[in-house]
Amino acid sequence: MDPLLVRAARREPVERTPVWFMRQAGRSLPEYRAIRERHSFFDVNRSAELTAEVTLQPVRRHGVDAAVMFADIMTPVVAMGVGVELVEGVGPVIAEPVRTSAAVERLRSPDPHETLGPVLEAIGIVRRELSPERAVVGFCGAPFTVAGYLVEGKPSREFAATKRLMYDEPRVWHALLERLADGFVEYALAQAQAGADAVQLFDSWVGVLSPADYCEFVAPWSARVLTALREAGVPTIHFGTGNATLLGVMAEAGGDVMGLDWRIPLDEGWALAGADRGVQGNLDPAVLLGPWERVESAARDVLARAGGRPGHIFNLGHGVLPATDPDVLGRLCELVRAETARERFHASGTAA
Amino acid sequence: MDPLLVRAARREPVERTPVWFMRQAGRSLPEYRAIRERHSFFDVNRSAELTAEVTLQPVRRHGVDAAVMFADIMTPVVAMGVGVELVEGVGPVIAEPVRTSAAVERLRSPDPHETLGPVLEAIGIVRRELSPERAVVGFCGAPFTVAGYLVEGKPSREFAATKRLMYDEPRVWHALLERLADGFVEYALAQAQAGADAVQLFDSWVGVLSPADYCEFVAPWSARVLTALREAGVPTIHFGTGNATLLGVMAEAGGDVMGLDWRIPLDEGWALAGADRGVQGNLDPAVLLGPWERVESAARDVLARAGGRPGHIFNLGHGVLPATDPDVLGRLCELVRAETARERFHASGTAA
Repeated sequence: MDPLLVRAARREPVERTPVWFMRQAGRSLPEYRAIRERHSFFDVNRSAELTAEVTLQPVRRHGVDAAVMFADIMTPVVAMGVGVELVEGVGPVIAEPVRTSAAVERLRSPDPHETLGPVLEAIGIVRRELSPERAVVGFCGAPFTVAGYLVEGKPSREFAATKRLMYDEPRVWHALLERLADGFVEYALAQAQAGADAVQLFDSWVGVLSPADYCEFVAPWSARVLTALREAGVPTIHFGTGNATLLGVMAEAGGDVMGLDWRIPLDEGWALAGADRGVQGNLDPAVLLGPWERVESAARDVLARAGGRPGHIFNLGHGVLPATDPDVLGRLCELVRAETARERFHASGTAA
Repeated sequence: MDPLLVRAARREPVERTPVWFMRQAGRSLPEYRAIRERHSFFDVNRSAELTAEVTLQPVRRHGVDAAVMFADIMTPVVAMGVGVELVEGVGPVIAEPVRTSAAVERLRSPDPHETLGPVLEAIGIVRRELSPERAVVGFCGAPFTVAGYLVEGKPSREFAATKRLMYDEPRVWHALLERLADGFVEYALAQAQAGADAVQLFDSWVGVLSPADYCEFVAPWSARVLTALREAGVPTIHFGTGNATLLGVMAEAGGDVMGLDWRIPLDEGWALAGADRGVQGNLDPAVLLGPWERVESAARDVLARAGGRPGHIFNLGHGVLPATDPDVLGRLCELVRAETARERFHASGTAA
């Protein structure tokens, strides 16, 4: 039998709602911080064993239904020849921002055996160590969000240089996104081949775009990645934030499951994404910094809005904040499991 | 006769659509940069004459229908005793973030004669210099957005400390917002008394909140400011970004006109804000960095979606980006004026 998350992504009736957390591996966990005392971030990234270990830590601790690969969103572009530095407190910084045809031309196909080797190998380790009912979720940045980093040269709030390139040099823009999309297809398929049961496409900053700009400049390239995965039979989760008005057009671009942020109540977001999709989400990660009573009532609200319909995967609306108490994540997992198992029990009791 | 913008804000039929731009005064203008070569930002803020001059510059250059006061969002909290430093490339930085009852208690009523004196005096100068058909738009940060700066201590993307305070110490949070709201009522009413024809409440970062959190933690305090202005007969514009899912609840909190960002097509945003409101917006300011043909078609799309209905004020979806060519702003003004005057002419021609 396929892992719970995969069956939920196909909107099959499941025994309970699967639960995992974006950015569950990493700084919120003391066992991760212990590893980082001895190894740099890049040490972890370059070692299949350390990557697998860090990826498995939250599964062991919280019992979540998926292990999401601990990888950086810039890993595939490093494999395409871009110089990226991760600056503490800033984020990914690009030595030479990509803003010209020449810079786009220099992006090569990702080399799966060099930079990507450790991630792909780590996927194999995680898949072997994980029990079959748990899923390995592969991770790939979406062409727009990664292009935003490449064009701006660093994290941005407004993405003004990115939009200027779109408007002023649409051919350069589309050439850049095409090259990224083709590279990401290879990367994502390689993850599936290595053992990932599903792949999440992260379009974290897509919410800065109007729906019209999304359709013109982004949709075809996200669709290229999502379509390639669908044709290979790999379930996909398509995630963005600040995206309530984009949900319809993002769903058109693809995704078996649409990732929702907390800005829209889950039932309303599901209606916009379409009844033919699953949805993942959507508790505000900041709620987990507050008292348990609030976490509990917010989680129950998410579950009530999902209404036990097949296709819901419980998650936060964005990544776990580093200050989050891991015990709260564990309790939240238990709550989702207990509540949704009971729901199904009652539902089948009623049906019998 | 009242200024065009004021009549539009009341949804009266007007001879053409008023147009102005958020952050129209400032860094996009060479005449502003010339002043800043001789005077620091704080010099400008402390001088009524310089503030008035900088406020009037875009009206002279572009012929916009409103002069929006050149003031900093933190001005009223400086007047309430908070130490704020404006750090180049960062934004407002607070020496001692406000996170406790004691810190809230230390916030005093704003002193209109000291810190606020120059802004209020500048409003009088601008009102006297401006022709009567043009409006002076007063400017006030909304309690949530200003509280976000005070709690975080600096600009933030996630507002995690702000939300943690809301959830963990709701009494401290509400005391803080009450004190800010009361101070802002005084500040906004003083602006109206000094000659402002309308006041815009800027809730720039409110889009980080879920609708439920907005209703619980923010709505009552924005409503307090907007209600006081309504009771004083001052037209209000209520602006946020990233706010498509909040438009309904923000409109309930108040505002004759709801400010829309570019993430939602204007007609859809107007439907969410309610037919009993005007709307302001909503061209993506980044579009102005691109070629004129794109600016033109995007502006025509905004106007088409407004459909000439009374209550539309043309603006961007957020502030002018510093890199914007002022000539593009001028051409855009002309376009809106010519297009909407023609529309009205045709409409009355048809009716005759």
